[in-house]
Amino acid sequence: MREPLLSISEVREFLDNVFPQMRGLMEVEAVGSMSARVRMKIGEAELRPGGTVSGPSMFALADCAFYIATLAMIGRESLTVTTNCSINFMRKPGPVDLIGEARIMKLGRSLSVGEVTVFSEGMEEPVAHATLTYSVPPKKG
Amino acid sequence: MREPLLSISEVREFLDNVFPQMRGLMEVEAVGSMSARVRMKIGEAELRPGGTVSGPSMFALADCAFYIATLAMIGRESLTVTTNCSINFMRKPGPVDLIGEARIMKLGRSLSVGEVTVFSEGMEEPVAHATLTYSVPPKKG
Amino acid sequence: MREPLLSISEVREFLDNVFPQMRGLMEVEAVGSMSARVRMKIGEAELRPGGTVSGPSMFALADCAFYIATLAMIGRESLTVTTNCSINFMRKPGPVDLIGEARIMKLGRSLSVGEVTVFSEGMEEPVAHATLTYSVPPKKG
Amino acid sequence: MREPLLSISEVREFLDNVFPQMRGLMEVEAVGSMSARVRMKIGEAELRPGGTVSGPSMFALADCAFYIATLAMIGRESLTVTTNCSINFMRKPGPVDLIGEARIMKLGRSLSVGEVTVFSEGMEEPVAHATLTYSVPPKKG
Repeated sequence: MREPLLSISEVREFLDNVFPQMRGLMEVEAVGSMSARVRMKIGEAELRPGGTVSGPSMFALADCAFYIATLAMIGRESLTVTTNCSINFMRKPGPVDLIGEARIMKLGRSLSVGEVTVFSEGMEEPVAHATLTYSVPPKKG
Repeated sequence: MREPLLSISEVREFLDNVFPQMRGLMEVEAVGSMSARVRMKIGEAELRPGGTVSGPSMFALADCAFYIATLAMIGRESLTVTTNCSINFMRKPGPVDLIGEARIMKLGRSLSVGEVTVFSEGMEEPVAHATLTYSVPPKKG
Repeated sequence: MREPLLSISEVREFLDNVFPQMRGLMEVEAVGSMSARVRMKIGEAELRPGGTVSGPSMFALADCAFYIATLAMIGRESLTVTTNCSINFMRKPGPVDLIGEARIMKLGRSLSVGEVTVFSEGMEEPVAHATLTYSVPPKKG
Repeated sequence: MREPLLSISEVREFLDNVFPQMRGLMEVEAVGSMSARVRMKIGEAELRPGGTVSGPSMFALADCAFYIATLAMIGRESLTVTTNCSINFMRKPGPVDLIGEARIMKLGRSLSVGEVTVFSEGMEEPVAHATLTYSVPPKKG
């Protein structure tokens, strides 16, 4: 089992420096072997008519959670970029926080491939599911 | 050739009523047969380190542009929902407006399927490409 | 927990009648609540240079396994059709049987959405992963 | 405009050597700048009940057509592999040949990204649409 290179506090510190705009929006709840759990704090800006969370917000969480799972495994690399995401929206979330459970299925030399299941706090069934591919920068040296 | 049910000004008025949060962010530039063009105004909130536009912003534009193309064809239906989106990120956008060109490939009784090509203003090659499926509410009566 | 409407022997009998061309190629190994496991027998026709299994074969198994998981839940409906599939190819399979583990994430009135993880017999890590959407025919009466 | 490195006859000869199993099944009809057109000959093996062509056959054509468009641009590289495909099935094909129109949207150092529109001969509207990513082997030397 491959262990993450970064601890949860190292991940939080790195994000805080590199993506200060995520402060207060995305909270890293757990980091593990090839996995991460991230909470998205839902406020007025993320809501749609009818008291549900917008699709782009669910996408943003999936993208962020998978980035964090990959970051924890490969170390401080702010250069990884999403190359592909396929997302299915399955149920309407409530006007509450979203939780993204990310799992890496393949961590290769140039690509990280995996999935994120998105939950609306308090609902048992997932509201969305995404598969993502991140391009990983080649190692220097 | 199927003509849109709504004119561009009817689309703009409908969006302004139903999605007031899009005001100043998304501008409908054109509506045609099975197609639409939407501009996303890029400000500080959409930027990432290095002066590029975030992936979730490109997703938000693709989602919005395809919604508008579908809305114009089927009429005022705020209930359509995205069921699936697959997006490829191909180039880094500059810190300028994004333009989404949406095209419906199939408009069926229950699904609208199509693609959106996303451009960064002033670049010839697209920065992202998405295929989307929207669920269309059944006609009453 | 929703139970399947059809037993494994009912599923096998139905497939044998409706898709006789799958005989000897696809074997239903298990059917459960919102899930199924299907084995694809690999012969010369499915191999590519280098002794690996072709991408279209992995796609065919994913499509078949998800169809069977859905069929078992909704009953004999040969009319369900795939509307979307996003598949990631992650590792080279060996020249041996493939196994597809299908799981339904949402079974709605008109759509069945889920995922299939594809394994090459004897390898621990998956060789491919697909998310699929099937359109389910409306109930008569 | 980038020109293909291989002519149509060079592409045909290469395929014939490397993928002899495609003989009589896939016919390269055109090769151009970042594009290709491939015909799939439909016989009994590709048909489903009701006289339509199976989903896996449409996938196989999309995969093959995009491979050929990429091959023509980068030269004889049998090592390129599909990493991702998202395909939407939109209409039922007739029991006739399929035609795949491939277009590369980005040809980078390590990835080729593009789309294939699949037509059923004699129908104006496409029956399927796929976006694909191919991993391209690094240049030697």
